Amino acid sequence: MRTINVGIIGLGTVGSGVVEIFSRHAEHFRTRAGVDMRLTRFADRSTERFDALGLPADRCHTDWHAVVEDPEIDIVIELIGGTGVAHEVVIAALDAGKSVVTANKALMATAGQEVLDHAAAQGVDVAFEASVGGGIPIIAPLKHSLTANEITDVMGIVNGTTNYMLTRMAEDGLSYAAALAEAQAKGFAEADPTADVDGLDAAAKIAILASIAFNSRVVLDQVPAEGIRSLAPSDLEFARDMGYVVKLLALAHRTSTGIDIRVHPTMIPAAHPLASVNGVYNAIYVVGDSVGETMFFGEGAGSAAAASAVVGDVIEVARHLENGCLGLVGCTCAEELPVRDIADLITRYYIRLQVADAPGVLATTSQVFADHEVSLASVMQPEVTEGGEAVLVYVTHRASESAVRASLAEIEALDIVHSVGALLRVEDL
Amino acid sequence: MRTINVGIIGLGTVGSGVVEIFSRHAEHFRTRAGVDMRLTRFADRSTERFDALGLPADRCHTDWHAVVEDPEIDIVIELIGGTGVAHEVVIAALDAGKSVVTANKALMATAGQEVLDHAAAQGVDVAFEASVGGGIPIIAPLKHSLTANEITDVMGIVNGTTNYMLTRMAEDGLSYAAALAEAQAKGFAEADPTADVDGLDAAAKIAILASIAFNSRVVLDQVPAEGIRSLAPSDLEFARDMGYVVKLLALAHRTSTGIDIRVHPTMIPAAHPLASVNGVYNAIYVVGDSVGETMFFGEGAGSAAAASAVVGDVIEVARHLENGCLGLVGCTCAEELPVRDIADLITRYYIRLQVADAPGVLATTSQVFADHEVSLASVMQPEVTEGGEAVLVYVTHRASESAVRASLAEIEALDIVHSVGALLRVEDL
Repeated sequence: MRTINVGIIGLGTVGSGVVEIFSRHAEHFRTRAGVDMRLTRFADRSTERFDALGLPADRCHTDWHAVVEDPEIDIVIELIGGTGVAHEVVIAALDAGKSVVTANKALMATAGQEVLDHAAAQGVDVAFEASVGGGIPIIAPLKHSLTANEITDVMGIVNGTTNYMLTRMAEDGLSYAAALAEAQAKGFAEADPTADVDGLDAAAKIAILASIAFNSRVVLDQVPAEGIRSLAPSDLEFARDMGYVVKLLALAHRTSTGIDIRVHPTMIPAAHPLASVNGVYNAIYVVGDSVGETMFFGEGAGSAAAASAVVGDVIEVARHLENGCLGLVGCTCAEELPVRDIADLITRYYIRLQVADAPGVLATTSQVFADHEVSLASVMQPEVTEGGEAVLVYVTHRASESAVRASLAEIEALDIVHSVGALLRVEDL
Repeated sequence: MRTINVGIIGLGTVGSGVVEIFSRHAEHFRTRAGVDMRLTRFADRSTERFDALGLPADRCHTDWHAVVEDPEIDIVIELIGGTGVAHEVVIAALDAGKSVVTANKALMATAGQEVLDHAAAQGVDVAFEASVGGGIPIIAPLKHSLTANEITDVMGIVNGTTNYMLTRMAEDGLSYAAALAEAQAKGFAEADPTADVDGLDAAAKIAILASIAFNSRVVLDQVPAEGIRSLAPSDLEFARDMGYVVKLLALAHRTSTGIDIRVHPTMIPAAHPLASVNGVYNAIYVVGDSVGETMFFGEGAGSAAAASAVVGDVIEVARHLENGCLGLVGCTCAEELPVRDIADLITRYYIRLQVADAPGVLATTSQVFADHEVSLASVMQPEVTEGGEAVLVYVTHRASESAVRASLAEIEALDIVHSVGALLRVEDL
């Protein structure tokens, strides 16, 4: 058994978790997994982290080149994140003939093809299980166990921050602001929560999953994303009364006219397996033509869970190194399916309007929907009015996204309408 | 890309599903998975199946040797099942230098070590994802994605027949007999349902999962199994009133004194992810020291789902053949942990006694528990009495299995006690 040397760049939350797993289980990697691996070089911008982790000073560097250029390093773990330095690091490591393990969803969702091409050119591995769903095995099952299937649907609760917030709003009536403050206090949300609450984090993850599941490259820019900022606890209550649960869902469907992919708050039936995934948990639901429905559930965030996925990947790459079969499964995007315009979407909608407490508002707004051939399933006008503002809640029959958007543009321009408070898609999975 | 020739032995439900997937997706295996595979030889006892599947007559055989001895065959799929002929087939195929894919839980749970040893001796692959959980990827995640973890718990609903029956009994009040008859009518249960309803099928599956998860061989004989024959709808109702759901759970825990493994009807909290797995669905819940809680959900039975796992394995073996790295991951049982005696179990118990409708029964039976130091949390005496028979439902505090069994032996011998109607373990997961 040869010794495989691993270098790690980025010693933040996940990086610290990786160091911790190596220190606890290095011997188990030999006996249980059949690989002899050592973390032999460390890089981070901050020298404080070297001390905090008790790493040997002569193996620690503030310049990542020291890791990538060390000829003894076989595998480079990139945990810087983002598409700046991380992009340089990954390409440089691959070009130096090293295999790469990364948790970088932004990089894989924007430059995934470039990364895989550089790996293929060198005949090395690139693995990124931790980029989606924290510790949940989902990329490996899609690239391996489920390959006999034509996958038709991938739907996930892939952002723990927003799922925690929505759970608190639904179960305990917290406002969006209170739920966010609590998530920040508990360390589940960043000081700047934009990437989470606006759905961008989820969009990167579904781009990665769709590319693998449908064997066709989808990049972040192609994923329309709406977040949860405008949701009120009352929306979650209305949904519940109708037998639904609201989740920030990342969805991708293979259709006869291309890939339907999007991220938005979604009403899903309360009995669906995804509906009971609460708190910071993540789950990815996959439908294949043979396997039927499957779901992969677990901790989507947290240092240890993500580190589990990173080290699992490192072990797998080490096995390939040990057995001389790097590059076993590279890019699987063999097709070029078009990505559908969300304007072509046909689904049901939940719409909350904040309106003036005036006569005729219901009739006027309903007429606008009728003019655009958006057929209404129900309209509710709860009694609550605060400061002269009333609420109208519409649920439509199946309608086209473009017709709904045109209706809402016209409705928003009415004097008697203050704002479109919330827009949810209803998916009867 | 070289052509990989696959032979299949056993063309029943799953075998037919495999043939079907090959006919639908052979071209996709090339383009999406990067392997060129063909089903080139078929064996079954019944020639009718050859015709039904429209297979070429010169490639069909009633003697399995024709497949195993064909020098052009690279991979043999064994779908006969059981430990008789299937055992011969698998060993012969491996000894002939062919890789083997099987769905055979009985074989892997009894002779798994022998099978893996023969594969290792020849440097070939043996894969058996379909032996547990139908189409759900669970063996591959345990052998690959989760290898960075020390797995502490594996718990599964791994028998679709009994889960269907329990769901119908809990939700619609069906009796055991009615639920079984319905499951048989729908094709979810065999004419002889013993293996399912007595927990033997689940026992084989948890033996396989525990061996992989804990890196230590556990065989079928070491798994105490109790089934669901004695359960009544009233047991499921009592459980629900207490906030629990009854599932036939296959459990394995790594403890400081060895592997705790067993199959029995179990009361689990209604909020646990396993509690909402209903109908013929299966789910396996895994806890690792880094990944935390994860769960793998899907169709545990059915031709297409199991065939998905079989063909997924075949593709993986084909990739290894194509890249010259057969034998990448073989036996992972590096340790020899003892298996604990179930008599040493300490948990809570739900006990239903069928008793005479006579004064003092509650006092007398309670005293027996007290004599054995089994502390009682509650006792309920529902009003219903039919034919002079009454019911007593006990729930204990944590007690030892041996003390509970000794109590029940003594209680059963009492004239005023007709029978121990049901015994459930309560697991506060």
